[in-house]
Amino acid sequence: MIVALAGGVGGAKLAHGLYHTLAREPERLAVVVNTGDDFDLYGLHISPDADTVLYTLAGIANPETGWGIAGDSFAALEMLRRYGDDAWFRVGDRDLATHLRRTELLRAGRRPTEVLAALVAALGVRARLLPMADEPVATVVTTPDGELAFQDYFVRRGHRDPVSGVRFAGIERARPTAEARAALAAAEAVIFCPSNPIVSIGPILAVPGMRALVRAAPGPRVAVSPIVAGRALKGPADAMLAALGHESSAYAVAALYRDLLDGMVIDRQDAEQAARIEALGMRVLVTDTIMRDEEERRRLAADVLHFAGELRPARQSMEPPT
Amino acid sequence: MIVALAGGVGGAKLAHGLYHTLAREPERLAVVVNTGDDFDLYGLHISPDADTVLYTLAGIANPETGWGIAGDSFAALEMLRRYGDDAWFRVGDRDLATHLRRTELLRAGRRPTEVLAALVAALGVRARLLPMADEPVATVVTTPDGELAFQDYFVRRGHRDPVSGVRFAGIERARPTAEARAALAAAEAVIFCPSNPIVSIGPILAVPGMRALVRAAPGPRVAVSPIVAGRALKGPADAMLAALGHESSAYAVAALYRDLLDGMVIDRQDAEQAARIEALGMRVLVTDTIMRDEEERRRLAADVLHFAGELRPARQSMEPPT
Repeated sequence: MIVALAGGVGGAKLAHGLYHTLAREPERLAVVVNTGDDFDLYGLHISPDADTVLYTLAGIANPETGWGIAGDSFAALEMLRRYGDDAWFRVGDRDLATHLRRTELLRAGRRPTEVLAALVAALGVRARLLPMADEPVATVVTTPDGELAFQDYFVRRGHRDPVSGVRFAGIERARPTAEARAALAAAEAVIFCPSNPIVSIGPILAVPGMRALVRAAPGPRVAVSPIVAGRALKGPADAMLAALGHESSAYAVAALYRDLLDGMVIDRQDAEQAARIEALGMRVLVTDTIMRDEEERRRLAADVLHFAGELRPARQSMEPPT
Repeated sequence: MIVALAGGVGGAKLAHGLYHTLAREPERLAVVVNTGDDFDLYGLHISPDADTVLYTLAGIANPETGWGIAGDSFAALEMLRRYGDDAWFRVGDRDLATHLRRTELLRAGRRPTEVLAALVAALGVRARLLPMADEPVATVVTTPDGELAFQDYFVRRGHRDPVSGVRFAGIERARPTAEARAALAAAEAVIFCPSNPIVSIGPILAVPGMRALVRAAPGPRVAVSPIVAGRALKGPADAMLAALGHESSAYAVAALYRDLLDGMVIDRQDAEQAARIEALGMRVLVTDTIMRDEEERRRLAADVLHFAGELRPARQSMEPPT
């Protein structure tokens, strides 16, 4: 079992690469997704990171944006605007069906993990997609205008507000699901996808008990930096790291994960950071990490899995003899 | 003020005729709509009769079906089917926006009457559209398979089950709204549209206090029969009347409303029932009541208003001198 921890677009891309790299055994991939971005809109439950990974693995993601469904129409959204709704969350008609179906199944009493499994199966995806927890968790950011719900900050206000704090409301009541426990207990490798370390991977690791499960995974733990040459490839991870007192660098991401990682994958542009990162107590792979197309996703995934394979003996030697 | 009581498609057609007939003063029309058919689906609040009247008055109703929006697409519904949803309620993408907007406004704490007014204004309709009550009421029918929620019976099961009973769950807590009270208190005429007397007009009249308000209206009260030559023009009104022990006839409809009406409008095909209906203590207008196109809606509306005008002196002579 390969376990990937993922947020939105960047995480989905690497998960997609892993899915194709494990093409003959796609069931070996389990993607644990951030649900701290989940929110309710118009009475519907929306899970943006899960949907992005779902659509990407199903091969129906919009290649222009990374999120949403390719070729989707926006008739409902246009009509909403006619009704005077500000329609700030750009939901397509087919995408809306995902939210309708999720809401229907949740109202019927099914757990979020079961609901996501049903959506995954319906779209023919053979990997497992696991919410980080079945309990509701809401990422809240502190800005000069006060606390903002994550989607308010990220989508409605275009992640332009400086962020001075992040909290995960409800996290103390969240628990890793039985499915996530089982996947991590069987993990030949745990891959931290190149997602925002604060608000995408951060909530996953903040679920009480999750860090211990990651640490106890039998295989090596490897992260891919979402920061290349000091900049986030997408989204506000760079500004957020800086605002919260970190460097905006691959090194800073490695430092955030230091007690959890056996290896860190960084871009060639950041090769000079390798020694500093190794000094944190982990190995470093320097490679091309920018995924411009599906071929690059597969190549990075193969590089990451190969690197993890190299780390496996080292990791196993750390285990107490049985 | 002209007040129309209406259910779905048949009621919407006459309401549309009245709206055009009052073209220079559309604000004089208030349509009180049945909300006993309202239900929740996918977390959304759906108000089918209100929407049918809304779309019809806005000139965007689907002319083929009478409900839904002309030219609507069904991308969300198709995707829902892909997810394994039975998608029994055939909701278009634009129609979905109505449910999303309604749900959003209700969740923001606005009353159903205010929400419907906002939708009406957004679509440029200048008549008032008033829910029969702001409190939730749910029409439930008894069938050989037990009690069914109205939309289950009507849409999902295609109104094929014989109905042995009807009740309006929650009706005892419903009250006519201030807006409906004001409209009825100012009514120069109250028109009972050709909607199902049991499950469309029935719930409106079952709201505690509504019958007294209708009876106290200053203008005459006139009903248009939804039964022509023993058959409902649309829907199950004929079978339902018969199953509940009534005739399936214009006479039976007049008898159901007898304590409320000054006049009854019946089709030429039912002219022979006029004397029986007059014996119930009301006047009868025999005319063409089938509305095949917008011209026929306007003509019937004009006939009905003219008939009401003839009844006005009689009605006023019934009032105690002031």
